[in-house]
Amino acid sequence: MPYTSREIRLAARPTGEPQPSDFQLAEREVADPADGEMVVRNAFMSVDPYMRGRMNAGRSYAAPYEIGEPLYGGAVGEVVASHHERFAEGDIVVHQLGWREYSTVRSAKKVDTSLAPASAFLGVLGMPGLTAYVGLLDIAQLRDGDVVFVSGAAGAVGSLAGQIAKLRGHRVIGSAGSAEKIRHVLDDLHFDAAFDYHDGVADQLEQAAPDGIDVYFDNVGGEHLEAALARLNNFGRVAMCGAISVYNATSPPPGPRNIFQVVSKRLTLRGFIVSDHADRHPAFTQEVGGYLREGRIAFRETIVDGGVPAAPQAFIDLLHGANTGKMLVRL
Amino acid sequence: MPYTSREIRLAARPTGEPQPSDFQLAEREVADPADGEMVVRNAFMSVDPYMRGRMNAGRSYAAPYEIGEPLYGGAVGEVVASHHERFAEGDIVVHQLGWREYSTVRSAKKVDTSLAPASAFLGVLGMPGLTAYVGLLDIAQLRDGDVVFVSGAAGAVGSLAGQIAKLRGHRVIGSAGSAEKIRHVLDDLHFDAAFDYHDGVADQLEQAAPDGIDVYFDNVGGEHLEAALARLNNFGRVAMCGAISVYNATSPPPGPRNIFQVVSKRLTLRGFIVSDHADRHPAFTQEVGGYLREGRIAFRETIVDGGVPAAPQAFIDLLHGANTGKMLVRL
Repeated sequence: MPYTSREIRLAARPTGEPQPSDFQLAEREVADPADGEMVVRNAFMSVDPYMRGRMNAGRSYAAPYEIGEPLYGGAVGEVVASHHERFAEGDIVVHQLGWREYSTVRSAKKVDTSLAPASAFLGVLGMPGLTAYVGLLDIAQLRDGDVVFVSGAAGAVGSLAGQIAKLRGHRVIGSAGSAEKIRHVLDDLHFDAAFDYHDGVADQLEQAAPDGIDVYFDNVGGEHLEAALARLNNFGRVAMCGAISVYNATSPPPGPRNIFQVVSKRLTLRGFIVSDHADRHPAFTQEVGGYLREGRIAFRETIVDGGVPAAPQAFIDLLHGANTGKMLVRL
Repeated sequence: MPYTSREIRLAARPTGEPQPSDFQLAEREVADPADGEMVVRNAFMSVDPYMRGRMNAGRSYAAPYEIGEPLYGGAVGEVVASHHERFAEGDIVVHQLGWREYSTVRSAKKVDTSLAPASAFLGVLGMPGLTAYVGLLDIAQLRDGDVVFVSGAAGAVGSLAGQIAKLRGHRVIGSAGSAEKIRHVLDDLHFDAAFDYHDGVADQLEQAAPDGIDVYFDNVGGEHLEAALARLNNFGRVAMCGAISVYNATSPPPGPRNIFQVVSKRLTLRGFIVSDHADRHPAFTQEVGGYLREGRIAFRETIVDGGVPAAPQAFIDLLHGANTGKMLVRL
């Protein structure tokens, strides 16, 4: 195999905020694919907030990354060598062995680049998109008339969750972390209201939702969750998707002090992980693919150039909200 | 009408722990019942933790008690005068206008004292019993093989929740607030394990449930909820019924610092209020009435004598866990 592949390995488990020194750039020769394998030249790799959890030791919902081993996650690219009966050279595929230039994989999913560019299959048509779809419809059980609040509204998941709710006729309120993001949420994503959480969540949410909210799609945790519990109407539902505000915490972050509202307002808080919901991919693709084809969905990507060496900083920046829409590294 | 009735009125809204001075003993003449009304001479009245919330001003799931007006809640007694077509003198009925010796009511439920003494219809066969049943089966969605943790296990609700789970074949762990209660939970209620929460919740729960828990029936909130989140297995469920540990809090109590476990373990936390679930009364009565008839359910009552004047202190003591099983005042 004529390829060498640069990759990012975990050098040390981050304490609090990840540092560049927690990552190590390395290189390896790419072996010929064995039977049932293929080699993919990656075009884009994904950095996602959930990866922060995998950098910690110990039990999580996924096995932790191993020190000295390459990181992994979503990537999309072209098959350049295949001993896999269902894939041929030239296929564009999504797979889960990113953080490297060439990936040798046994399982992948072909993507339809007539529908959207390959990068979209890491975002609006990929894992973040399915997360938004499942969280809103299955976990939060969206019902007619619900007022929906989405945090991280300019992010890969939140931007789609809000747009799906809008397209289904709901009033949608979003929060994000800068004036520019708020403009994007209002002007491009057509949320009904949006605010910068740096100016306080509780008061602004109350102003935006004077009659309360029925669904909260939580990407953020912390102060946002407490404010949402205060504003939820009776029988409201929270899809607990992520908590980026606390992923770098070095001591246990405060929990919502008003958790008793769950009893008094008969709320349902439900956590979920998209990988449990692969069965919903066809329905998701049909609905969201349809919106895309009709031009009814906007999706933004924040693409970082510089290849694999740029990935650690892209990930660090992601945790600070440097992205609008899906954060990707171009390889 | 030849009756005068003593009653307890709300003198002031408690700040933190209720004080005797927050209550006022008063007397009134009982008028003849109007058409559609009946007069009940109450034999027992209930004091329940939820009443603490109604003593506060402002929005809750129920209208607050009014200052200067009598309190109300579950009571059982005998109809002594009726202008109601479905009730006759001598009927034994449960109704919601307790905290007084005689109640003039328009709606009540006849009880079958061949099944259990009248007082039981304020406990094991009444609102607390239905709460346990609905919380365990409908809210927590009890499933085969679930390991169940119940806090407030010696209380009116917890004692029945644990016993229903046991009778359905589950491993059941309970917490309560004294060595005597723990003995009761183990010896009379036949829980598999039980511990005194004063000696710490997290460690004792881990010892009692080395393989984790699947359902947590929360009557207590606070530290218990945090410990349960830590021990819940993937796809675990929490029936959030009450939070007696924080009802007297004068500042917002800390929330569970590990709330992110709801995401990583795909937990469902669901609050409920029994009055939303009256449709389950027939199924509840059939199952739990059957257990009672067969002698398979133990139920304890803590009965306070002294009549209506003793009710405020009984309520105050209830919030300190003075009861084992259902707390009642004999009128």
